[in-house]
Amino acid sequence: MGNTFGHLFRITTFGESHGGGVGVIIDGCPPRLEISIDEIQFELDRRRPGQSKITTPRKEADQCEVLSGLFEGKTLGTPIAILVRNKDTRPQDYSEMAHTYRPSHADATYDAKYGIRNWQGGGRSSARETIGRVAAGAIAKKILKQAGVEIIGYVKRIKDLEGAVNPDTVTLEQVESNIVRCPDADCAERMIDLIEQIGRQGDSIGGVVECVARGVPAGLGMPVFDKLEADLAKGVMSLPASKGFEIGSGFAGTLLTGSEHNDEFYTDEQGQIRTVTNRSGGVQGGISNSENILIRVAFKPTATIRKEQRTVTTDGTETVLAAKGRHDPCVLPRAVPMVEAMMAIVLCDHLLRQRGQCGK
Amino acid sequence: MGNTFGHLFRITTFGESHGGGVGVIIDGCPPRLEISIDEIQFELDRRRPGQSKITTPRKEADQCEVLSGLFEGKTLGTPIAILVRNKDTRPQDYSEMAHTYRPSHADATYDAKYGIRNWQGGGRSSARETIGRVAAGAIAKKILKQAGVEIIGYVKRIKDLEGAVNPDTVTLEQVESNIVRCPDADCAERMIDLIEQIGRQGDSIGGVVECVARGVPAGLGMPVFDKLEADLAKGVMSLPASKGFEIGSGFAGTLLTGSEHNDEFYTDEQGQIRTVTNRSGGVQGGISNSENILIRVAFKPTATIRKEQRTVTTDGTETVLAAKGRHDPCVLPRAVPMVEAMMAIVLCDHLLRQRGQCGK
Amino acid sequence: MGNTFGHLFRITTFGESHGGGVGVIIDGCPPRLEISIDEIQFELDRRRPGQSKITTPRKEADQCEVLSGLFEGKTLGTPIAILVRNKDTRPQDYSEMAHTYRPSHADATYDAKYGIRNWQGGGRSSARETIGRVAAGAIAKKILKQAGVEIIGYVKRIKDLEGAVNPDTVTLEQVESNIVRCPDADCAERMIDLIEQIGRQGDSIGGVVECVARGVPAGLGMPVFDKLEADLAKGVMSLPASKGFEIGSGFAGTLLTGSEHNDEFYTDEQGQIRTVTNRSGGVQGGISNSENILIRVAFKPTATIRKEQRTVTTDGTETVLAAKGRHDPCVLPRAVPMVEAMMAIVLCDHLLRQRGQCGK
Amino acid sequence: MGNTFGHLFRITTFGESHGGGVGVIIDGCPPRLEISIDEIQFELDRRRPGQSKITTPRKEADQCEVLSGLFEGKTLGTPIAILVRNKDTRPQDYSEMAHTYRPSHADATYDAKYGIRNWQGGGRSSARETIGRVAAGAIAKKILKQAGVEIIGYVKRIKDLEGAVNPDTVTLEQVESNIVRCPDADCAERMIDLIEQIGRQGDSIGGVVECVARGVPAGLGMPVFDKLEADLAKGVMSLPASKGFEIGSGFAGTLLTGSEHNDEFYTDEQGQIRTVTNRSGGVQGGISNSENILIRVAFKPTATIRKEQRTVTTDGTETVLAAKGRHDPCVLPRAVPMVEAMMAIVLCDHLLRQRGQCGK
Repeated sequence: MGNTFGHLFRITTFGESHGGGVGVIIDGCPPRLEISIDEIQFELDRRRPGQSKITTPRKEADQCEVLSGLFEGKTLGTPIAILVRNKDTRPQDYSEMAHTYRPSHADATYDAKYGIRNWQGGGRSSARETIGRVAAGAIAKKILKQAGVEIIGYVKRIKDLEGAVNPDTVTLEQVESNIVRCPDADCAERMIDLIEQIGRQGDSIGGVVECVARGVPAGLGMPVFDKLEADLAKGVMSLPASKGFEIGSGFAGTLLTGSEHNDEFYTDEQGQIRTVTNRSGGVQGGISNSENILIRVAFKPTATIRKEQRTVTTDGTETVLAAKGRHDPCVLPRAVPMVEAMMAIVLCDHLLRQRGQCGK
Repeated sequence: MGNTFGHLFRITTFGESHGGGVGVIIDGCPPRLEISIDEIQFELDRRRPGQSKITTPRKEADQCEVLSGLFEGKTLGTPIAILVRNKDTRPQDYSEMAHTYRPSHADATYDAKYGIRNWQGGGRSSARETIGRVAAGAIAKKILKQAGVEIIGYVKRIKDLEGAVNPDTVTLEQVESNIVRCPDADCAERMIDLIEQIGRQGDSIGGVVECVARGVPAGLGMPVFDKLEADLAKGVMSLPASKGFEIGSGFAGTLLTGSEHNDEFYTDEQGQIRTVTNRSGGVQGGISNSENILIRVAFKPTATIRKEQRTVTTDGTETVLAAKGRHDPCVLPRAVPMVEAMMAIVLCDHLLRQRGQCGK
Repeated sequence: MGNTFGHLFRITTFGESHGGGVGVIIDGCPPRLEISIDEIQFELDRRRPGQSKITTPRKEADQCEVLSGLFEGKTLGTPIAILVRNKDTRPQDYSEMAHTYRPSHADATYDAKYGIRNWQGGGRSSARETIGRVAAGAIAKKILKQAGVEIIGYVKRIKDLEGAVNPDTVTLEQVESNIVRCPDADCAERMIDLIEQIGRQGDSIGGVVECVARGVPAGLGMPVFDKLEADLAKGVMSLPASKGFEIGSGFAGTLLTGSEHNDEFYTDEQGQIRTVTNRSGGVQGGISNSENILIRVAFKPTATIRKEQRTVTTDGTETVLAAKGRHDPCVLPRAVPMVEAMMAIVLCDHLLRQRGQCGK
Repeated sequence: MGNTFGHLFRITTFGESHGGGVGVIIDGCPPRLEISIDEIQFELDRRRPGQSKITTPRKEADQCEVLSGLFEGKTLGTPIAILVRNKDTRPQDYSEMAHTYRPSHADATYDAKYGIRNWQGGGRSSARETIGRVAAGAIAKKILKQAGVEIIGYVKRIKDLEGAVNPDTVTLEQVESNIVRCPDADCAERMIDLIEQIGRQGDSIGGVVECVARGVPAGLGMPVFDKLEADLAKGVMSLPASKGFEIGSGFAGTLLTGSEHNDEFYTDEQGQIRTVTNRSGGVQGGISNSENILIRVAFKPTATIRKEQRTVTTDGTETVLAAKGRHDPCVLPRAVPMVEAMMAIVLCDHLLRQRGQCGK
């Protein structure tokens, strides 16, 4: 259960890291949208492993096949099914996992929940599951683009190295200009060095991805359970390794007084009602106010490390384990397109819901 | 839209701050559960305004009526409808709101979304909406209690005053022993002083609520979109004024390396597989691991302040506004039962879903 | 579970025949719709018992109260909660039901499912549950009316007495011109006589309600599971006492060949593509084609009869039972507004869904 | 939208008749269920075209591939994705469809809804869409079998030829003993002759499929919208070409009085509460009563015929059309596994929902 996300623009993902493949069904996509395989593959390439020296050396082309829902380069309005075959599996890398639980992985909880587990990899908890999300996100982004909305994510912080980035002006080109996806070029250098150093130690690190949506019209979102920030939180907190979520001022905002924190209104030169500050992060009462929507997501250090750790076998016997497979010392660079995808899917769903209920 | 939450244990809330009343329909509650009106009212009383000198002086008894779903003190398995009438309304306090947008409130976004707004209060964004959640939470807590699960929330921080609380041992009695609901008695005193001082200034402050679930069996949650942390994040990020969410190590965990962060396994004296640390916050891969589930929620300073602020009218004319109504200088003490309620509803829903799919 | 219906225009009903009351929450209603209590009450009055000599003599005013979602005569876009209090209960009429199962009622299945039952009436299986549906239907009808859609139901057949009615021209006035709601005045007389005669015998009869939607734009509905006829079938088959559903040619259409059954296309004087016949019932491939949508619903004879019947007690002891309460000898006249309501709710939901996905 | 069905046992289908393939994702399947590809393929073979002289001569092996969710012959509890590739397409058979609407097909309504259409076949309205349903049904049947439930469908009537079949004793072997799937051998002969004769004329015929579920425990279903008969109606009315649905006495039951129609209770030799008759069709108040659940579905004559028919082109020009492709003169034999699949999916979903809410 729980493999479907969204209400009108709705995605369902499937697939384990090992087996026939992974993919997604996108239901509710507006018809007649022009979208090419290349646009989808572009995002998958940003997500795939082996793309640079700081990601896992596993080589997976992650070439996608669109099984349905497209005709002559346009969406039909019917389900778009996208499949990526699994390749380059090395089950021997995982044989120990059949009997030994990896610390801070889902092996033990899978056994507790299902009483069965495909130990030849991470199962549904593998980062490969996010392939379907990223593919769906590419389509959501295209819909949003036509509505004037642009979504840009980037690495804000690696461990304690924090980049200086202006979310109001940052561009995709800046993000993609280096392999760590931090638009602050100087900081990016230091981040890359740190990741390489940690990787050589057989250890791992985490950090924070920030993501901005610009051009979102006022009025998206709902006042109660489906607040925009609530759906965004659910979307990104369902990504592997995420441990925290903020919108706008976030946790730091709790250190201000109301008079310091409130976003005062003014009318701009175009006669639009705007806010002087944006501590709300573009959302007030769960509904977008046309200011930039700004979120941050905390990703823990990768659980798979080559250092030896204390653990237990499936029958409870204590033992030690050191990962042998090929893994990312830091998921952050590859998490950027994932966060963007979830933000795009949430906003696209709310765009259609708003049109459905309120007719605009 | 978006007024329903949960999949098997499912709640739908209704009602504005002004009008006939507010309430909830709880669908999917197991039958034959013993629950009294007093148990529901107990939680509503923890939430209601006017309960102490540091909450709004509005006097609202918030007496609930159960319209359906109970018979001779037990649940029928059919929808439980609970209604709380609105009282003590002073529309004159709000007349200015018909034409002037309150900064960091939802007035402007409601107009953008719906093109209409009940200006006699906060509408669905009023904290009164949470009455339905807290009532439903009382029932969810009772179901969880029978499954051995206990949920305790408390104020962890007010502005920069942080209490020392052990989530593994904290009790409801400790939480309820002071009006700010911080179990660290010394810190609580300082918090109360600070809230009173800020209130006298016509300003407001925020902080952090922490909430723990103890005794959760391993196996609750889902591996992908409906990860336990994702549903918890959605639940609490849909509460008014929340700006951030963390589980386990949260944002601070991003400063550790993997070898520092991972929760190593061991087998305890009862032969149970446990983790040495709990940076995962009781959830691995979206599924509970039987350790305590620990979350934190950031609440911004109350938007309503008596200080004069710059704003605009509905037609865009710039003006100033100072709130005249009776409001909380700090929502945190009353947010505690709200966070507990959302956590209880999420865990109860997953308990039933797990039983449905996996039969245990 | 299962007390919610609809996807964008979504209703949740609550309440038993005995207890505080029954009602509905309507979520997803478009904002700024003008709707008065009188318009809702009009439909409830068509549904209520005691409205004529051929319905149950129970007197229930069924006066509705709108608790939320309306402001100055217009919808707010937020949940509309409607409550009708229970009155005129005579629990003594039902005391035997605590221990004896009524044949073809839900008493026994409730006990099997929930292990508990409010024996003071029919619980959720009471026709009172449909109050919420009819109230929601009044609002759905108003939305549809603004889109040019009109829904008219009527009694087509009572037992073997079948009225001659033209669904393309029948009017509400014709339907309401007699107490049995059959627009064929001559047949209506005979139907009324038959119902009275059967009622005097302490027995009951059933029949068929037909319902037409005129002016439905082409394009509503979905090609697969949410076909218009599938959602209509679910809607009306969830009404108490319904045993069968047809759209267009229905079961009789299975006696024709394809060349006899197919609806050939032509272009009318306005240049619109139309069909010569309408055996499809206004829906092709699950999607409306702008022809009139025509459905029929079979309602069994009322289960409650004053004749003595063989039955068992809750502990399985065989006994006999004859109903003592006041009941309808025929539900058909009161079923007409129920069928209309469900058809309106389904079409309204699909209207909003179509606008959401396809933008028109 | 609308490509997902079910609440806990939930399927999502994808794919057009032309393109990469068709398939299904099954979410919520209980873990550790033993299921083989052969068991799934068995049902697909009952559905596939070209299986006998009375079905379309199109040869489609419809070989399925399980992409995920199975491991070493058992379900993992995660999504089961099943893909069947498209083959043997003859787009030239359909070229006329690009510009000419086939009577009683969905071509025109697709254009009205989406403004775009894959004219190389029936798109989502193709019977190929049901491959995913039948594959999912095979799994649902296996789950039900372990709960003691058996589902058997058969052709009850072809045009006016009605077979004599006892739903309480009919076996799968009897159904599969002839190519028309009517267990009344004599009638089956006449049905086959009639279908061949009609096929030679380039025409088509319809009929009625009856389907029984035996061994269903009492207590499945819901009292209001998700009544068992409502979900069954939706399930089968979403199949291509279905025009009507009945449960138990159906439309014929409306000709009886209440005293004739009611199912009196008695206690059988095992002490079980049973009903003397089964006009309720195994469901009372939306909930199963442990008697056999019996439904009937009307299927119209196949819309595709080789006889010349009046129609219009996409720009409204009147013309004539005679189908050239290879089609079934009667869908009934292949509809049997489709009806069984939908009934199995509905019952399986309610089995899990009942366990979730009521714990049994």
